[in-house]
Amino acid sequence: MNILILGDVYGRPGRRILKDQLTHLISEHQIDFTIINGENASGGNGLSTKNARELLNLPIDVITMGNHVWQQKELLETIADFPQIIRPLNYPEPCPGKGYDFFSCELKNGVTKKICVVNLSGQIFMPNLSCPFNTMAPLMDTLKKSADLVIIDFHAEATSEKIAFGYFMDGWATAVYGTHTHVQTADERILEGGTAYITDIGMTGPIDGVIGVDRQIIIDTMLTKRPNRFVTATGNVQINGIILAIDEIENKVSKITRLYETYEVEK
Amino acid sequence: MNILILGDVYGRPGRRILKDQLTHLISEHQIDFTIINGENASGGNGLSTKNARELLNLPIDVITMGNHVWQQKELLETIADFPQIIRPLNYPEPCPGKGYDFFSCELKNGVTKKICVVNLSGQIFMPNLSCPFNTMAPLMDTLKKSADLVIIDFHAEATSEKIAFGYFMDGWATAVYGTHTHVQTADERILEGGTAYITDIGMTGPIDGVIGVDRQIIIDTMLTKRPNRFVTATGNVQINGIILAIDEIENKVSKITRLYETYEVEK
Amino acid sequence: MNILILGDVYGRPGRRILKDQLTHLISEHQIDFTIINGENASGGNGLSTKNARELLNLPIDVITMGNHVWQQKELLETIADFPQIIRPLNYPEPCPGKGYDFFSCELKNGVTKKICVVNLSGQIFMPNLSCPFNTMAPLMDTLKKSADLVIIDFHAEATSEKIAFGYFMDGWATAVYGTHTHVQTADERILEGGTAYITDIGMTGPIDGVIGVDRQIIIDTMLTKRPNRFVTATGNVQINGIILAIDEIENKVSKITRLYETYEVEK
Amino acid sequence: MNILILGDVYGRPGRRILKDQLTHLISEHQIDFTIINGENASGGNGLSTKNARELLNLPIDVITMGNHVWQQKELLETIADFPQIIRPLNYPEPCPGKGYDFFSCELKNGVTKKICVVNLSGQIFMPNLSCPFNTMAPLMDTLKKSADLVIIDFHAEATSEKIAFGYFMDGWATAVYGTHTHVQTADERILEGGTAYITDIGMTGPIDGVIGVDRQIIIDTMLTKRPNRFVTATGNVQINGIILAIDEIENKVSKITRLYETYEVEK
Ligand SMILES: [Fe+2]
Ligand SMILES: [Fe+2]
Ligand SMILES: [Fe+2]
Ligand SMILES: [Fe+2]
Ligand SMILES: [Fe+2]
Ligand SMILES: [Fe+2]
Ligand SMILES: [Fe+2]
Ligand SMILES: [Fe+2]
Repeated sequence: MNILILGDVYGRPGRRILKDQLTHLISEHQIDFTIINGENASGGNGLSTKNARELLNLPIDVITMGNHVWQQKELLETIADFPQIIRPLNYPEPCPGKGYDFFSCELKNGVTKKICVVNLSGQIFMPNLSCPFNTMAPLMDTLKKSADLVIIDFHAEATSEKIAFGYFMDGWATAVYGTHTHVQTADERILEGGTAYITDIGMTGPIDGVIGVDRQIIIDTMLTKRPNRFVTATGNVQINGIILAIDEIENKVSKITRLYETYEVEK
Repeated sequence: MNILILGDVYGRPGRRILKDQLTHLISEHQIDFTIINGENASGGNGLSTKNARELLNLPIDVITMGNHVWQQKELLETIADFPQIIRPLNYPEPCPGKGYDFFSCELKNGVTKKICVVNLSGQIFMPNLSCPFNTMAPLMDTLKKSADLVIIDFHAEATSEKIAFGYFMDGWATAVYGTHTHVQTADERILEGGTAYITDIGMTGPIDGVIGVDRQIIIDTMLTKRPNRFVTATGNVQINGIILAIDEIENKVSKITRLYETYEVEK
Repeated sequence: MNILILGDVYGRPGRRILKDQLTHLISEHQIDFTIINGENASGGNGLSTKNARELLNLPIDVITMGNHVWQQKELLETIADFPQIIRPLNYPEPCPGKGYDFFSCELKNGVTKKICVVNLSGQIFMPNLSCPFNTMAPLMDTLKKSADLVIIDFHAEATSEKIAFGYFMDGWATAVYGTHTHVQTADERILEGGTAYITDIGMTGPIDGVIGVDRQIIIDTMLTKRPNRFVTATGNVQINGIILAIDEIENKVSKITRLYETYEVEK
Repeated sequence: MNILILGDVYGRPGRRILKDQLTHLISEHQIDFTIINGENASGGNGLSTKNARELLNLPIDVITMGNHVWQQKELLETIADFPQIIRPLNYPEPCPGKGYDFFSCELKNGVTKKICVVNLSGQIFMPNLSCPFNTMAPLMDTLKKSADLVIIDFHAEATSEKIAFGYFMDGWATAVYGTHTHVQTADERILEGGTAYITDIGMTGPIDGVIGVDRQIIIDTMLTKRPNRFVTATGNVQINGIILAIDEIENKVSKITRLYETYEVEK
């Protein structure tokens, strides 16, 4: 069993490359279950209802989110219509949407795996949500009972918090992967307790911008310290993510492989 | 010509693995010039005079620093004794030490290359130093005239700032590499203008800690939000960095290769 | 009935001026109950067991704390011996100490008032504790049942968070006052619902430093951006705080008066 | 000679109360020169060209700004048309507008005073502008030569930075006053070297909001951690500021008086 997980899909270039390439990637890598992070899918800022539908027409099983989750305000109301969308669990209740859910994945051999997908936001250099460590701790017993696999998108900035959370989940979660920095890290590994871990899986979108945004706009902002309207970068694109090969007997990751594909876009 | 650059050397485990392996790495990869980041070499906190001497007894040409540079207070006075140490250029003047310097590297073919090594700190989620973009801009003409190669250690947290700085230097600097997050990124590449770039080259030190620190201490800190004394992690170690292959005619990087070595340590 | 509340007591100068003047202030203003903030009482950093005892030998009924609460590590163990010490409620559980408690205050006319004192930390520009708004909300019913008066020390940096919390508590709490910035604000008032409010009650300690610290050290730190060891300022001192006049029938504040006393210290 | 300085004018309620009351205040307090902070005059976000004109039709001599200065983008171009507008000096050059300027003030006795007004932004918990201490230091000699009085609006969040800057300027500047927190502090005084100082002069605008914004919106934001569109508060208003009485012989402040006026607004 193989699980494909793709990093923050950024704007139209990110959505378009998935439309073009996702089916191909899934067949090439014999993928059984696909998760993407969608917090930047609508012009870099959140996920509109229309773009959510568009993405979920592709073979995507779950969309996780992050700090940009509510930037398209309509999602506050429409998120209830999308059982596949998971937003950070550590928003204070009551909050529209859900922070984790269970998804069934039927394998080619007829076996069905129950996958719990969790989305959490870090605290360091991030908005003031509840502590992800203390949010997760009391749920661990219950969640594990109802799932064969637990996959956690830990959406955070600081490497220290991400690594610490990976160790905190080691032996309990199937995999903990980071999102949010939009740059893939090279530290993928299976921790001592068997949990697959990587600090950040990267971004799916324009290569030549600054984490998605037109680079000249960001350089100008850095030089002048004056606000600018952000515009999505154009040009070539990348698909960033990981593939988790699952040992179906043990329900553990046998291999975590980084995916870093680049594509030329016709001008 | 090959240049070896190693990420933040962390504590005794980091210093020890360099003592054991650096000579071997240099000969294996036919390295002509070696730069390390030393801001965490003394127990994670700065660089003591003694440890500076110890490291510079190894075949290291330059030590760059970062936000921890002044944590061993004695270095404020002794840094003047170490021409090989470069601290972030964007500290306000007057400040002990220097933010860049020129180093001669004699190649096996008798040619001597003049290498300018620059150290800069980012501003986002970092201490309030001067803007690295505006600090660098007025120096570009002068520095380039006196050097065959310009290598920049951009010590910063935010991926956006690091990538933007890479593009800002593209076509001018030989290479811009990030340090500070202690996690190597997988985005190494040669930008359009010919500058080699990577968001972070990673850390040289204990693998099983949290960016160098004992992991249980950090998990406890995250759970309790109470202060703890940090202790360097024990166990296996890693050497993280990059190798820049230089085209000696063009004085440009022909290849940037990530180095991610792990070593078992006897208990 | 009059309640005296004094802002962050800073170091030895702060403790000493209380020893000299507190009894006098209490009799001058006919005070029935006294609360001080003690997070900086020991050299600016937390509260040692010895200094806690020393302060509680004075006519002080309650000591509230703040982000510095655990800087004297011994307090983690000895706080249990001091029923009068209240630390921020929004530390994750389990945490030594308590975030609120009920205190009996016998008035001169023989009536006894039950006073609930709460300590909360803000989140903006502060350590990552739980949300004070969401921490407080579920406790409101229970606390009010057991107390005649509820007094809240809201230890926070941002004026927006402090004012918003004041309004949030308006009509429920007897008084909400801010601490932490060490500078008294001039916005004391009684909100529409009857809750007394002030953004910050100020600091009790040296006048001529920078929020308690020797001023030249702070200016040097600002100019050089290099770390310095902080030393408590010397010279003249101030006592900052508020006096709440309580309507004993309504159990509401009838008047909130700022106290801003300065004292010359012999050299 | 008396100088009136008013804190951040917030939105339409702030502009309107100035239209209604400024002339009266000026005559009541025999004011010779008036400075206001205008960074929030247009709906809380910056200063539009139209609102700048509107304010400068009132007897206002200088408008200082802050971190919101460029939120009305048109001001980037029109600021050149307004010699009375001063924006933070520590924006990187080139930047539209100016960080200080000299203004002539003719007194009733025929004497003309040259007043240098400076605007600086702090760094702590603020956008990454250049260090205000190091920006100011090299200008001190020149500025003082051309001015009888130097008045500095130090727009900053942290009390430590504001107080330290006050001491840094002590004996050189005529007055240093803080803006940005929108809450007036009670620590006005004349420092040892003769410089008048106050940590924050407060806000001119709605009383019953949260630093200008409708309070329920801010409470909701605090409780839900989800973004909200900010709306200016309605209801009663305040004028906050200071009056500096100047000794015309010594060109020093003889008295600094806080102004904290409240006005009922018809519903
Ligand atoms: Fe993202
Ligand atoms: Fe994000
Ligand atoms: Fe480091
Ligand atoms: Fe660092
Ligand atoms: Fe304090
Ligand atoms: Fe504090
Ligand atoms: Fe403002
Ligand atoms: Fe401001």
